[in-house]
Amino acid sequence: VRTGCRVVEIDVARRQVAVERPNGGKTHVESWDYLVIATGAVPMRPNVPGINAEGIFEVKTLEDALRLRQTLENGEVRRAVVVGGGYIGIEMAEALFRWDIEVAIIDMLPQVMGTLDPDMAEPIAEAIRREGISLYLGEKLTGFDTTSNRLDAVVTDKRAIPADVAILGLGVRPNTDLARAAGIALGTKDAIVINSHCRTNLENVWAAGDCVQSHHLVSGKPTWIALGTVANKQGRVAGLNVAGVEATFPGVVGSAITRFVETEIARTGLGERELDDLGIDYVAFKVDGHTLARYYPGTQPITVKLFAEKPTGRLLGGQIVGGQGSAKRIDVIATALHGKLTIEDVVNLDLSYSPPYSPAWDPIHLAARQLQKLL
Amino acid sequence: VRTGCRVVEIDVARRQVAVERPNGGKTHVESWDYLVIATGAVPMRPNVPGINAEGIFEVKTLEDALRLRQTLENGEVRRAVVVGGGYIGIEMAEALFRWDIEVAIIDMLPQVMGTLDPDMAEPIAEAIRREGISLYLGEKLTGFDTTSNRLDAVVTDKRAIPADVAILGLGVRPNTDLARAAGIALGTKDAIVINSHCRTNLENVWAAGDCVQSHHLVSGKPTWIALGTVANKQGRVAGLNVAGVEATFPGVVGSAITRFVETEIARTGLGERELDDLGIDYVAFKVDGHTLARYYPGTQPITVKLFAEKPTGRLLGGQIVGGQGSAKRIDVIATALHGKLTIEDVVNLDLSYSPPYSPAWDPIHLAARQLQKLL
Repeated sequence: VRTGCRVVEIDVARRQVAVERPNGGKTHVESWDYLVIATGAVPMRPNVPGINAEGIFEVKTLEDALRLRQTLENGEVRRAVVVGGGYIGIEMAEALFRWDIEVAIIDMLPQVMGTLDPDMAEPIAEAIRREGISLYLGEKLTGFDTTSNRLDAVVTDKRAIPADVAILGLGVRPNTDLARAAGIALGTKDAIVINSHCRTNLENVWAAGDCVQSHHLVSGKPTWIALGTVANKQGRVAGLNVAGVEATFPGVVGSAITRFVETEIARTGLGERELDDLGIDYVAFKVDGHTLARYYPGTQPITVKLFAEKPTGRLLGGQIVGGQGSAKRIDVIATALHGKLTIEDVVNLDLSYSPPYSPAWDPIHLAARQLQKLL
Repeated sequence: VRTGCRVVEIDVARRQVAVERPNGGKTHVESWDYLVIATGAVPMRPNVPGINAEGIFEVKTLEDALRLRQTLENGEVRRAVVVGGGYIGIEMAEALFRWDIEVAIIDMLPQVMGTLDPDMAEPIAEAIRREGISLYLGEKLTGFDTTSNRLDAVVTDKRAIPADVAILGLGVRPNTDLARAAGIALGTKDAIVINSHCRTNLENVWAAGDCVQSHHLVSGKPTWIALGTVANKQGRVAGLNVAGVEATFPGVVGSAITRFVETEIARTGLGERELDDLGIDYVAFKVDGHTLARYYPGTQPITVKLFAEKPTGRLLGGQIVGGQGSAKRIDVIATALHGKLTIEDVVNLDLSYSPPYSPAWDPIHLAARQLQKLL
């Protein structure tokens, strides 16, 4: 293991990589029999005025987070703006808000959590506003006001928001410039194309993680999902195959989970936007229920939305927002997607019941029962 | 709706039931076009000396529970013995222990929670003993010592345990005497045989709930599982069919969940004993893991045991014991059983991950990965 070294070129014909030593030291060459590319993703950095000012942070690496904490500990941060209202954005907003800092979130979409449907994102926005965080949706970042290269304000197409720090949570893109230069085929969003064994288009070259595209088991199409779960599974499969043990990674269904303070958030499969884009004929139903038996102390509200294909009834996806005990229920929907279950199958799922854990009809059952009527 | 009335005879030929009015009042006849039998189950009552003494309680109905609470509120109960260490037994032991009563549990099996494997039941027994509850396993109830028909002690084949109250938690049996007398076919454990539409062997006679047998989707054989989830689903299907809407109840996988204080307990599918009885060639693996990311505050120990068929790898069942956040994970295994997934499918399940909810590899993944190696 050589840390701090950076591969600057992949030479497939010679089975070599060119490696640059730490701190721009001289370059040497390493030979390989098998190559596994796991270059991950890089944060999106908008090319706007002031982007390199002091006080603007990415949160990609542990070092990024430590630098930010150091700044917060210095105690001169009163106002923070988070650019992007997705997973990273709302998790960072929560973290900053716990430091008693005045926080605002901006996003160019008209909703937070763009991987959920607008109606499911609405209660999340409410929870964010309830904590006193300002939310500026449908506003595009145009730049940063600075004084002597020090951040003064985050500027959108509608306003300037004074800020001591700004956090970039604009998402990531596959880190695949080296792979492209080496002649490795790229697909969706320039992620590396791999087969079910995690092999690229080139013999003896494998790839895994945030830099590769995945097969979506529900849409049947390539997708790019930069998540640790997927990366771990692909890494295992690539490693086993390189070691001569046959293994396959069949694909993803797009499960993700997060929370904002006490609001749990989860999604899997395809949502409205994706279904519309794919031209799939579907029905959706959203139900408000309880996490536990209605009378049980600690029961929490939960909203479950399910999607099914017309007229087959095939389950297509689900989204969940609610109190404690809500989000992990998404795993039932994810597993049902892997099993290619229909909505009728979901109605009849033998899910466990006991008052401290669930109503006799789980909220997922309730959503499925209503959805079935729309088919 | 006529409450307090009791059906004393079903006459299928005449499409009538004979009904006895409350308090043994006179009998009258009700006619029917369709009959739904939902007579439920009755608690097992061992025919031993002293069984009818004052101080011995069943916990089948709300009235049973209210009578027991009244007795506890009188404040003269210092010692309680729970007969039976299954779901009802340990839930009652916990309830009594919370009243600051000295509690003992007896069970004729060498383990508590007979629906789990012995190795999975062991940590539950430890948790019970840790709370100061005495556990007498492998001891058979032989009777009750009484004075003037008032309970003094619960007697086993090994000892007499002084007790002010005793709770019977010996399980239930289908309440099907009327059905049998009416010529309705009974199956496993004298539960009513129904088809996937919840119809009995007789035209226009339907049945649902704790009085019927179910199709086990993993074993492919009839089974009898007296649980509210199953009863609810069957009741819905019977009702829809009677109303002329076709609906089917495909069957159960045997999911159940409970807890003792902070120890969560769940099972689904087939366990060791059932697999041995069915003569299925299988492998099992048990893994100790964490409910959340290992470093995350509040992470709890969790043990997951999975079973797979040899050599096909078909998932056969699972059992979970652990701290908060453990038990509901059984629903993933249950859903995987409905989907007829293999262990390799389980390894690749796209389950949701975020440090407050799960490790990147869920404990179910970890168990599946190890189990795969044994195939």
